[in-house]
Amino acid sequence: VAAGSPVPAIYFLSDYGLVDEFVGVVHAVLHRRAPGVPVIDLAHQVPAFQVAAGGAALARAAPHLGSGVVLAVVDPGVATARRGLAVGLVPGSASGPRPAWLVGPDNGLLVPALAVLGGAESAYRLTGGNGSTFDGRDLFAPAAAHLVTGGDPAQLGPRIDPGTLVPAPPAPPDREVGTTLITSVAWVDAFGNVQLRATPELLDGMGMAGGPIEVVVVEPHQDAPVLTARRVTAFAELGPGELGVLVDASGQLALVVDRGSAADLLGLGTHGPGPTVRLAPAP
Amino acid sequence: VAAGSPVPAIYFLSDYGLVDEFVGVVHAVLHRRAPGVPVIDLAHQVPAFQVAAGGAALARAAPHLGSGVVLAVVDPGVATARRGLAVGLVPGSASGPRPAWLVGPDNGLLVPALAVLGGAESAYRLTGGNGSTFDGRDLFAPAAAHLVTGGDPAQLGPRIDPGTLVPAPPAPPDREVGTTLITSVAWVDAFGNVQLRATPELLDGMGMAGGPIEVVVVEPHQDAPVLTARRVTAFAELGPGELGVLVDASGQLALVVDRGSAADLLGLGTHGPGPTVRLAPAP
Amino acid sequence: VAAGSPVPAIYFLSDYGLVDEFVGVVHAVLHRRAPGVPVIDLAHQVPAFQVAAGGAALARAAPHLGSGVVLAVVDPGVATARRGLAVGLVPGSASGPRPAWLVGPDNGLLVPALAVLGGAESAYRLTGGNGSTFDGRDLFAPAAAHLVTGGDPAQLGPRIDPGTLVPAPPAPPDREVGTTLITSVAWVDAFGNVQLRATPELLDGMGMAGGPIEVVVVEPHQDAPVLTARRVTAFAELGPGELGVLVDASGQLALVVDRGSAADLLGLGTHGPGPTVRLAPAP
Repeated sequence: VAAGSPVPAIYFLSDYGLVDEFVGVVHAVLHRRAPGVPVIDLAHQVPAFQVAAGGAALARAAPHLGSGVVLAVVDPGVATARRGLAVGLVPGSASGPRPAWLVGPDNGLLVPALAVLGGAESAYRLTGGNGSTFDGRDLFAPAAAHLVTGGDPAQLGPRIDPGTLVPAPPAPPDREVGTTLITSVAWVDAFGNVQLRATPELLDGMGMAGGPIEVVVVEPHQDAPVLTARRVTAFAELGPGELGVLVDASGQLALVVDRGSAADLLGLGTHGPGPTVRLAPAP
Repeated sequence: VAAGSPVPAIYFLSDYGLVDEFVGVVHAVLHRRAPGVPVIDLAHQVPAFQVAAGGAALARAAPHLGSGVVLAVVDPGVATARRGLAVGLVPGSASGPRPAWLVGPDNGLLVPALAVLGGAESAYRLTGGNGSTFDGRDLFAPAAAHLVTGGDPAQLGPRIDPGTLVPAPPAPPDREVGTTLITSVAWVDAFGNVQLRATPELLDGMGMAGGPIEVVVVEPHQDAPVLTARRVTAFAELGPGELGVLVDASGQLALVVDRGSAADLLGLGTHGPGPTVRLAPAP
Repeated sequence: VAAGSPVPAIYFLSDYGLVDEFVGVVHAVLHRRAPGVPVIDLAHQVPAFQVAAGGAALARAAPHLGSGVVLAVVDPGVATARRGLAVGLVPGSASGPRPAWLVGPDNGLLVPALAVLGGAESAYRLTGGNGSTFDGRDLFAPAAAHLVTGGDPAQLGPRIDPGTLVPAPPAPPDREVGTTLITSVAWVDAFGNVQLRATPELLDGMGMAGGPIEVVVVEPHQDAPVLTARRVTAFAELGPGELGVLVDASGQLALVVDRGSAADLLGLGTHGPGPTVRLAPAP
């Protein structure tokens, strides 16, 4: 195979964790049904049942995926009437190969990545599986293996309208109050970098492209410290313990500390999205 | 390779953890000696030295493995006189391909999976290695690579009687005391689901197929709460914080909570097997 | 491919952790640019920004790697003027295949492995990337994929003098004070084994090859217990809770406990290298 050619892979994300054998068993099922197809683990420590966090991780990874099938399982509704999905993507363009299918539960998990990847062209409701509580193994992995080996999607179940997919969990909207921006945490990574939902363009447009910025977490941490942050382009521009604002590797705003945890500095104890953050030009 | 054909793989389980480079080094050794053979990681965060927990994880995974070799290392007796083993399995039948060999220490680790996979046809005592404290790298991985590439097992060491293998660590037997079932915890997964050793058939036969069930952990937690559980088939049938009993994806009984931890609810702090659980028809 | 032949692989180590999708995204980039090349994960839970710990892990793994490219990213200086490197190794000899290239930041991370692998023959300064804060994805992975598929290193950037590489972080030297050896902790693994920097030869030469050894952590834990250790060759030679000194699987001295944590016994709370340890013949 020539370098750079589109060899299909399966891209696998879940909240199964890495302590138990769940991820390994899904790999074994994929290997039996699609031998020779690489399986790339995107993340398996999505917090249990957190569809929003899993959907965000998948959307961040999506621009970097090549041809093949995405298999994503964060599925609190397993073994209920919630639908299993295979969603066909609009084919890749001049920007290069991209996944052709996303497979997972119909609970909003796939929707943010769908948006990044250009939207759905088709969708199928998976009718396989056995009603077990391990649909990753029994329903979704077999469907992903079927599709990555060129199987007919119609064999997986009836075609459905992509417009009927359950939407992604809603995120609080950004708000401008005078010169103040009210936004929220999209992601806290393992280094403690705090990605915000507001875009760099919004912050810049409000006059916070250059000077110092006052930052405070206003909810759910009402006693959080009021900090002053500086716009930088690299962690190492910051002094020890200094808070920075930079455009991160996903093109989003992030609060950061050089060789340290902005989440700790801001009084955010956990890794979850959600908390409300207020930014304003420092006085 | 056609979809579904039996391409051999190595299925790897250990207690090496994922912090250090142990697992990666074993992969490197396998790649040097069996290039092109997929290596599927089943689990590497088996609690350190816990042969029973590792053996149970391997047995749960076993029905889903295809052709190839199982490499399992939970080995408190490394570098002692305990034997290293290659155990040959009875060949796969109409139910499809299965592993041909299990490789690991002779301490009971392989025995539960052996039972699931139809039993041993042959066994060899591994005489390689170098007496180091890293037999996963120096003894077991080379043996697994030798076997998966079609090497002669007799080159690994003398043939031994499979009947002489060290048995699996014993589990406490289930007991019926009147209408009460005394069983024990087989596994607590990362979601907090509590798998029991008693079979669904036993519970059903004692008249607990339908109505509510009183559940309490009686040892080692004498102050554990007495809870009432309901038989369900899906997590989402349960109300918030309600305890359920379902047949899990391994076909075993499990105590569960929807989007929560049954282990926490029951006062089980750790992930290990062992605690005694009492179930009885609720009054 | 015949068993044992040198099929190139990419050997990947980082401090990205396994919670976020960083490692998976790098795998996706490698798959797009070098499809069919195995990627072997050595370790991704190197403590954040700890160049010394990452360099030591890479050096321990190095003797076991086959042909291909090492990709290592522990990079607190990302997006600054620190150089990105591709370092060409002296070709493998009769001892078998070895990696041809090491790719990573110029901060000392690669240097200990370089020494193990026979030293640098050439070096190139990577000029790609996009100034992002995710050089593992945008600079180093593309360079590794380029090299593992036989690309011309001169296309990656200008050739530089390997003698100008930033050295590895310095380690405290071992000292002999009378019959006492002052050394330091090189590594605490997940089992709690404590690898020391002093060589077995040094300890033996000081008369501690046989009899009991007094061991104490003298810094930064001034209240640490004074313990007596015994030289052994296997964990299981030790009684319950007894401290042992053995030559570990890397050929280094290690303080160990059978089925337990020497780090806990010694009062070392963390997994990092550094603390000073004093060893002397027991009175």
